[in-house]
Amino acid sequence: MPREITGFSNETVKRVRSLRDKKHRRQEGLFLAEGLRILAEAEEAGFLPEMLFYARDSASHPIVTRLIAATEAAGGDVIETIPDILHKLSGKENPQAVIGVYRERATPLSAIDRASADIWLVAQAMRDPGNLGTMLRTGDAVGAGGLILIDDCVDPFSVEAVRASMGALFTQTIATARWAEFIAWLRTGPGTLVGTSLNASHDYQEPHYPRPTFILTGNEARGLPADYEADCDLLVKMPMLGKADSLNAAVATAVMAYEVLNQHRRG
Amino acid sequence: MPREITGFSNETVKRVRSLRDKKHRRQEGLFLAEGLRILAEAEEAGFLPEMLFYARDSASHPIVTRLIAATEAAGGDVIETIPDILHKLSGKENPQAVIGVYRERATPLSAIDRASADIWLVAQAMRDPGNLGTMLRTGDAVGAGGLILIDDCVDPFSVEAVRASMGALFTQTIATARWAEFIAWLRTGPGTLVGTSLNASHDYQEPHYPRPTFILTGNEARGLPADYEADCDLLVKMPMLGKADSLNAAVATAVMAYEVLNQHRRG
Repeated sequence: MPREITGFSNETVKRVRSLRDKKHRRQEGLFLAEGLRILAEAEEAGFLPEMLFYARDSASHPIVTRLIAATEAAGGDVIETIPDILHKLSGKENPQAVIGVYRERATPLSAIDRASADIWLVAQAMRDPGNLGTMLRTGDAVGAGGLILIDDCVDPFSVEAVRASMGALFTQTIATARWAEFIAWLRTGPGTLVGTSLNASHDYQEPHYPRPTFILTGNEARGLPADYEADCDLLVKMPMLGKADSLNAAVATAVMAYEVLNQHRRG
Repeated sequence: MPREITGFSNETVKRVRSLRDKKHRRQEGLFLAEGLRILAEAEEAGFLPEMLFYARDSASHPIVTRLIAATEAAGGDVIETIPDILHKLSGKENPQAVIGVYRERATPLSAIDRASADIWLVAQAMRDPGNLGTMLRTGDAVGAGGLILIDDCVDPFSVEAVRASMGALFTQTIATARWAEFIAWLRTGPGTLVGTSLNASHDYQEPHYPRPTFILTGNEARGLPADYEADCDLLVKMPMLGKADSLNAAVATAVMAYEVLNQHRRG
């Protein structure tokens, strides 16, 4: 049976609210996801929340009913509450009907089966949670296997990144590695590493992209370090016809990823 | 000669800070842009600020020196100040060295020369300022003529949109129109209207895109209204191989825009 919480000073509410901070996420190994769409996608991908908060007046919604039953069956904590508490937990003006608390997971590089997908995304020192979440969403769309985070990236389990991923956080493998470790692993098997770079001499439509292709995107402001570029198999650039010299990092990744996918679709 | 302001309660500081709110931007017809890169790009595009704030210790930077001289020559108000005031104006933790106050401008549809570019972007009810700014940045990159805003879009002159545009706000034409007005104008000349839609039967790489092509992207959550889709010449969709059914709106626009550009590049 769901329990009920309607008090703002409740310890559980305070604890879950603290998961909006990275420090508390690391301590607890938990993160927040909100909204019917994202929680339903998580369930479909095989992930149930350890705690499920839902608004009392949404209990009869078929997806909410299903999430409640599944979470209880899995031994999770199901909590009926009020919109004001959901607002407090999510920080959003118009809180979603459901919020789930999930266990963080990270896949070690050694556990990645690179042959399971034709495209892998790699982000280096990505600082914007919206960009990181958007890259996960794009990765899902192009059938990528996952996202490998290099150096000091923003936390993929932040509320903003989870929101921008639109549930792809649950379907994409996420790994974290230092550059040397990533390159060492990459070279133990097939895989072409393509960096997008202002210093590239190749137009991004020139090369033939083998399977799997690893698409590497650098920090929003600085791009890729020169020694990382030197480790790439290919450096490519998109045509830039205007005054600006670069695209938004998540946009550049998507334009590259669809080019690789389009080549693979042509066979 | 620049004047100096170091007091937080200064009327000019209060007035400029208020430009972070849409209401005050509309009243004054002014907006904020920050950072050397964006202000330099504005100058290159022929736009100087009506007011220029710069940090005292950055006055010797060659771009700052040039901006000060150009703004004074054009009769603008040049103000030397301190980092704390720049922080107050921009709302950013690490404020940029310069902040400019610019006059808003809007181009009426009737003044748009559609033949001046092969691609035009059209956004319908776009709600996220980051998405809108990113669309402007992508438009600049693909050589688009500008962005036409339909229905209730987020303000392109908001601090977040200006920031995400990375200066493209100054190089892209921006127009605002109701749908009926836009369609009436569109049909007075050449131009193919392509909507991205989940309901499309055509893969986005199938059609041949004439010049100019107008790329229409709908609201982040709801997509395009059915009657707007009915007015399009073509509805297309990107392949979606994963669990999600859509891309981020700015990403979808960019993937489409690069497809059109790539076709045009092939001749």
